Amino acid sequence: MATHSRDPILLTPGPLTTALETKTAMLRDWGSWDASFNAITANVRKRLLDIVRGHATHVCVPMQGSGTFSVEAAVNSTVPRDGHLLVLVNGAYGKRLAKLARMMGRRVSMFETADDVPTTAEDVDRLLAKDASITHVGLIHCETSTGILNPLPGIAAVVARHGRRLIVDAMSSFGALPIDLEATPIDVVIAASGKCIEGPPGMGFAIVRRSTLEGCEGRSSSLALDLHDQWVYMEKTTQWRYTPPTHVVAAFAAALEQHAAEGGQPARLARYTANGQALFEGMRSLGFRSFLDASIQAPIIYTFHAPADPGYEFKRFYAEVRDRGFILYPGKLTQLETFRVGCIGAIGPSEMRQAVLAIGDALRAMGIRTVTPAAARAVA
Amino acid sequence: MATHSRDPILLTPGPLTTALETKTAMLRDWGSWDASFNAITANVRKRLLDIVRGHATHVCVPMQGSGTFSVEAAVNSTVPRDGHLLVLVNGAYGKRLAKLARMMGRRVSMFETADDVPTTAEDVDRLLAKDASITHVGLIHCETSTGILNPLPGIAAVVARHGRRLIVDAMSSFGALPIDLEATPIDVVIAASGKCIEGPPGMGFAIVRRSTLEGCEGRSSSLALDLHDQWVYMEKTTQWRYTPPTHVVAAFAAALEQHAAEGGQPARLARYTANGQALFEGMRSLGFRSFLDASIQAPIIYTFHAPADPGYEFKRFYAEVRDRGFILYPGKLTQLETFRVGCIGAIGPSEMRQAVLAIGDALRAMGIRTVTPAAARAVA
Repeated sequence: MATHSRDPILLTPGPLTTALETKTAMLRDWGSWDASFNAITANVRKRLLDIVRGHATHVCVPMQGSGTFSVEAAVNSTVPRDGHLLVLVNGAYGKRLAKLARMMGRRVSMFETADDVPTTAEDVDRLLAKDASITHVGLIHCETSTGILNPLPGIAAVVARHGRRLIVDAMSSFGALPIDLEATPIDVVIAASGKCIEGPPGMGFAIVRRSTLEGCEGRSSSLALDLHDQWVYMEKTTQWRYTPPTHVVAAFAAALEQHAAEGGQPARLARYTANGQALFEGMRSLGFRSFLDASIQAPIIYTFHAPADPGYEFKRFYAEVRDRGFILYPGKLTQLETFRVGCIGAIGPSEMRQAVLAIGDALRAMGIRTVTPAAARAVA
Repeated sequence: MATHSRDPILLTPGPLTTALETKTAMLRDWGSWDASFNAITANVRKRLLDIVRGHATHVCVPMQGSGTFSVEAAVNSTVPRDGHLLVLVNGAYGKRLAKLARMMGRRVSMFETADDVPTTAEDVDRLLAKDASITHVGLIHCETSTGILNPLPGIAAVVARHGRRLIVDAMSSFGALPIDLEATPIDVVIAASGKCIEGPPGMGFAIVRRSTLEGCEGRSSSLALDLHDQWVYMEKTTQWRYTPPTHVVAAFAAALEQHAAEGGQPARLARYTANGQALFEGMRSLGFRSFLDASIQAPIIYTFHAPADPGYEFKRFYAEVRDRGFILYPGKLTQLETFRVGCIGAIGPSEMRQAVLAIGDALRAMGIRTVTPAAARAVA
C-alpha cells in the first residue's frame, strides 16, 4: 500500500477522521478514581444533555464499549422482562436491535419497510392501535445501512399519544441532526463517541428520562450492561462502575468542546449538509446515482449504485481510492451492488471534492467507462 | 490542584501509567474495515496467545469494553444455561464474577475464604468431590482487592482431574505472572488492555480453548457479549463484529510490542518484582505494615494498613500525595482501614522510591507521627 504524507481520510460512518486536538487529548494517562478525571466525565454528561435539551427531564449514562453495547444496555435496563418491543426496521441496525432484544428474552415484534422507505407515523399509529400489548417502540433515527432518515418527531408524537415508550438509536445522527427532548417525547436516546461528535470510538451513552430510569432497578439481566446500576453508582461516586476507557473519554470531551465551539448541532448539520452536497454533486458529475431519494437522505452517509461496467469490483475500487488517500465503506444491501461514502468527521466540502477527484481517477485507472448502473433510479 | 511539569504517576491497578510510545500510537484514525487495521487486530491476538503459549489449543477473542465485559462475555458464552459455576472468592472480583453469572441466570455456588487467605487446591478438590453438579470453576488469579495471589496451577490440575472446566480472571496478572497453557489445563483466561500489558483501558480479551468455544454457539443471551459470535465473525472477516475502539487497539498493539521487546512475561515480572520490593521496603522504613503475608503477595498491588494516627484521613492523604506527583488507590476492605499502592505500569523502582519519598513528605505535612497501626500483623 502506498505511503501517504497524511493518514487516509475516513469516509466511513465511524470510526471517522477526528481532529488533531481530539487525538492529542489521548496523550495523558488518567486515574479513574481521580477527581480530575471524574470532572471530565461530568462535563461529557452535561454537554450531551445540552445538545438535546434534556436537562429538565433526562439523565445521561455513559457506557463502555461500542454503540451496540449501549443499545443493548438501554433495552435490557428499561424494557421490563415481560415488556413487548416493536422494532421499526428498514436496515441492518433495526434488525440488530430486534435481535439483541430477542436474545435477552424480551418479546419482540418487527415492522419492516424496504431499505429505501422510511417508517411513517401513520404506520406506527396503526400498529399501536392494533396491539395493546406493545409497551415500547424501537426506532433507528438514521439507518447507516443506507443513510435513510426516519421521521422521528412524528413517530415520537404518535408513540406518546398511545402511551407507549420510545427508544431511539440515534447512533449516526446525534449531534448533527436535531433531537429536542423539550419538544419531542422520547424515553431513551442512544449514541456513541465515534460518530457525529467526532470523538474516537470506545464508549456510548444513553440519555434516559429520569422518571423512567428510576423505575428500572433490577431489570437488567446483564451486570456490565446495567444502565440503572451504572447511573446510580455514577451519581453517588462521580465515577464509572467499572474501568472507563479513560483516554477515549478525555478525547470525547475534547470533541464535545469543539462541537460546542463550532456552534453546536446546527453548525455541525450545516457543515455535513455542505459535505453531502459537495459529494452528491461531484458523484453525479462522475455519473453515479444515489440509492436514496434526496428527500429521505440524511447528510451522514450516501449509498451509491456500483458502476455497471463489468470491470468494476469493490475490492479493487476500494484499494485504488485508498491509495489516493480516502477510505470508502462497502454497501450493506443484499439485493443490490452498492458502496457507501460517509460525509461526517473532521472534514469539510474541500475534502469531499478531493475524494470525488480521487474516485474519478480510480475509475480511470480501472478502465471503467460505464458508471451509471442500468438498475439505478433517477434521483435528481 | 498543583500543576505538575509531568502528569502524576498512577500507582493504581489500571488504568496505569503507559509509555509515551503507547499513547502516541493513538494519534492516528483507523478505518475499522481497513486491512491495515485488521492486521493490527490479528497481531494483537497472536501476541496474546504467545504470552501464555496458547497457539496449539486456544484462540484469542478480543472484546470491547472494560475487563468486566470480557468476564461476563466469557461466562455467558461458555457456561451452558443449565451449567453450575463454582466461584472461588477472596475479594471483590470473585464476588463480581458470581454476581454477573447469577444475573444472567446461571446456577452459582460460592466458596469464600478471608481476604488474606488464598483458595487451595485441597479446598477445590473437596468441593468438586462433594458436588458432581458443578460444571465450571471460576477463579481470580490475583485479587486486586488486596493483591493476593491464588495458586492457579494447583487448582487447575485439580479441576482437570475432576473433569470440570476452569475459567480464570487473570485481569491483573496476565503478562506479568506466568500462565502456561501448555502446562496448565485452563479453559478460559480473561484479561484486559489496561493492566500488566500497559496499554490504555477500553478492551478486554478471552483466551478460550478452541474445542470449548466451538461448542458454544447460541449459549449467550447477550448479543454484544457473545464471544462465540465475535470469534466466528472475526475468523471469517478479520474484522470486529461491532465498532472496535480503534485507537485503543492500536495503542494496545504498541504496548504488546514493548512487552515482547522488554523480554516478555519473565522480564515484566522481574521489573514488577523490583518495583514491589522497592515499594515494600520503602513503606516499611516509613513504618507501614502490609496487609498480606509476603508469601501470598503478588507484585501487582500492595495493601497497607492506614496509619493509626487520629490525624489520618485517606482523602487528605490522597490529595497530599497527588500534589507530590503520585496517585494512590483506596482500600477495598470493609473491616479494616487500608489503602493500596500499585507497582505496575511503565515505571521502575526509581519511581517507586520517589513515591515513598512523596508519601513520607505527605505524612509530615499532615503531622502524622504514628504510622504503624495497632491492628497490623507483623509481616516481615
